[in-house]
Amino acid sequence: MLQTVANSADRPSRAAIAGLTGLTRATVSALVDDLIAGGLLTELEPAPRTGAGRPAAGLALSPDGPAGLGLEINVDYQAACVVDLAGVVRHRFVARGDQRLLTPTAALAALDALATEARAAAEAEGTVLAGAALAVPGLVAPGGLVRVAPNLGWQEVRVPPLAGLPVTVDNEANLAALGELRADGGEPSFVYVSGEIGIGAGIVLDGALYRGGRGWSGEIGHVTVYPDGRPCRCGANGCLEQYAGQEAVAADPELAAAALGIALSAVVNLLDLGVIVLGGGYAPEFARLHEGIEIELRRRVLTAGLAPVTLRPAALGADAAMRGAADAVLRGVQQDPAAWLARAQAV
Amino acid sequence: MLQTVANSADRPSRAAIAGLTGLTRATVSALVDDLIAGGLLTELEPAPRTGAGRPAAGLALSPDGPAGLGLEINVDYQAACVVDLAGVVRHRFVARGDQRLLTPTAALAALDALATEARAAAEAEGTVLAGAALAVPGLVAPGGLVRVAPNLGWQEVRVPPLAGLPVTVDNEANLAALGELRADGGEPSFVYVSGEIGIGAGIVLDGALYRGGRGWSGEIGHVTVYPDGRPCRCGANGCLEQYAGQEAVAADPELAAAALGIALSAVVNLLDLGVIVLGGGYAPEFARLHEGIEIELRRRVLTAGLAPVTLRPAALGADAAMRGAADAVLRGVQQDPAAWLARAQAV
Repeated sequence: MLQTVANSADRPSRAAIAGLTGLTRATVSALVDDLIAGGLLTELEPAPRTGAGRPAAGLALSPDGPAGLGLEINVDYQAACVVDLAGVVRHRFVARGDQRLLTPTAALAALDALATEARAAAEAEGTVLAGAALAVPGLVAPGGLVRVAPNLGWQEVRVPPLAGLPVTVDNEANLAALGELRADGGEPSFVYVSGEIGIGAGIVLDGALYRGGRGWSGEIGHVTVYPDGRPCRCGANGCLEQYAGQEAVAADPELAAAALGIALSAVVNLLDLGVIVLGGGYAPEFARLHEGIEIELRRRVLTAGLAPVTLRPAALGADAAMRGAADAVLRGVQQDPAAWLARAQAV
Repeated sequence: MLQTVANSADRPSRAAIAGLTGLTRATVSALVDDLIAGGLLTELEPAPRTGAGRPAAGLALSPDGPAGLGLEINVDYQAACVVDLAGVVRHRFVARGDQRLLTPTAALAALDALATEARAAAEAEGTVLAGAALAVPGLVAPGGLVRVAPNLGWQEVRVPPLAGLPVTVDNEANLAALGELRADGGEPSFVYVSGEIGIGAGIVLDGALYRGGRGWSGEIGHVTVYPDGRPCRCGANGCLEQYAGQEAVAADPELAAAALGIALSAVVNLLDLGVIVLGGGYAPEFARLHEGIEIELRRRVLTAGLAPVTLRPAALGADAAMRGAADAVLRGVQQDPAAWLARAQAV
């Protein structure tokens, strides 16, 4: 029901929801009443037209409902955001600083402080947090164990509760791709490339994130572009990360764009995707990068002459991963509102 | 029903099929009787144990049912096979010869002659063909138009009926991957790499072929391995095909294996697949190639230390593509036996 409202382009009426879900109007009204009472839905009554930008009548996710705490830890920053059930970013905190200088324990202690600050800001407004999710630039095992995050220097790190909340951990490019899928909504299949110090990709096929056999898909940063090239932290030579990571983009944007174009051509040749989204640190650099990438795509994608490949910056810009993390929390509430209502009543 | 029998490890009884499908025993028996009468199923009665390799009692696809005509055209050969409904190759024809010397019309005329020979061999045994499918090393559009097959020099080629049968056209690596999926059965996700003059891949995710947005996935032959390397027929430089196509394997197997390892590392880094199958011309070369490929995989796959990647030769060897083509025909019969029975009665 909440998902039906969330996926509607405008504010649906109770009757419209009955039509969309196949439930009877009586059932829909009973459910809607419960969800309004629980603070998850809000309903605007039709009002006389005044012409002055009044919101449309109907049901919407309540901005006063539970919010999601989205967290991100990356090589040169930590970030936290509070996103309400209606999808609005209510608070946003970014703390710059090289995480490679910290032990995992120290980095997570700093993140706990940032998360606590975000939680306090939310609660000062009367906003309750439904949970937290954390985006990390690394390989995450089921259960939230970070197996390895090469650019952070992390190995086998278990993330504790932060700001007193249990934390779901996922790969940052995966979360960013999910955030982008929700924000954009139009494209069912694309590759999202997140450029920080490291580079990751989230692969969305037919409207769903493709995670791979063990959840470790999208490691585009370690696709070889120059087989005998620069040594990488992973032990190989010539990985994309060494030519198109954030520091390399600053040093030589042309080489970075060419390297990205070579690796992305491999993605398109293998997966036949028509859309590439540049996110993370690439989003603000889009104007400097896109032409160099497109030159390589035209040259190296076998089907370039038959079907165009669209390259665009991420709709959510550099915030996509933490927004995706907050979205993951909110999706949990939307998918199982009864569990949230039971929890809220028990407190 | 036929699929239930096809997917059973042993010969299921009528009662077992009722259990597997949720149909009543009476319904199953009525259907089974029709399918036996139509020549699609065969039933062995339980017999006193004699100990001497007697087949198990139960239902099986009938070897006397309709057969599939699998066809393949590749750079240096044409091939045809007749596979019966029970999965046995009844006839197999291979005609060596450089197809690049022929116009598409001449190549298809030669293939028509080969297909006619195969059809005659089948009919001489009383075997009826349910249809034909053709594997081509190129990009195929819906409806069977070959948009481009760079190594054949084909562009916008429409395949006519062959041996008097309408022909379904598909990419050779895709068909080979489907053939491998059926032959192996154990692995739901893998990449199948077909090495001929050109190189293609079939990507199987969770038991289904991943075709991509326009059906053009798996173009691993045009993944860049050396960005400033040898010019390729596609117009780019340094494509895998130039280092690991059949001629390159013969000339320098070590370089070929290294190039394959670099490109396959990209596949695994992007898709997190645990199994790589080497097929087509690579299957007989497996012993010469696998070590060089594995060295690169160990070095370049980010997760190589966390989870092994298995490399193995195709179960169907170099015949996988034409076998996959024949399988595609037989799958059509299995999925809609009623259509086949109606057609057979009308003739």
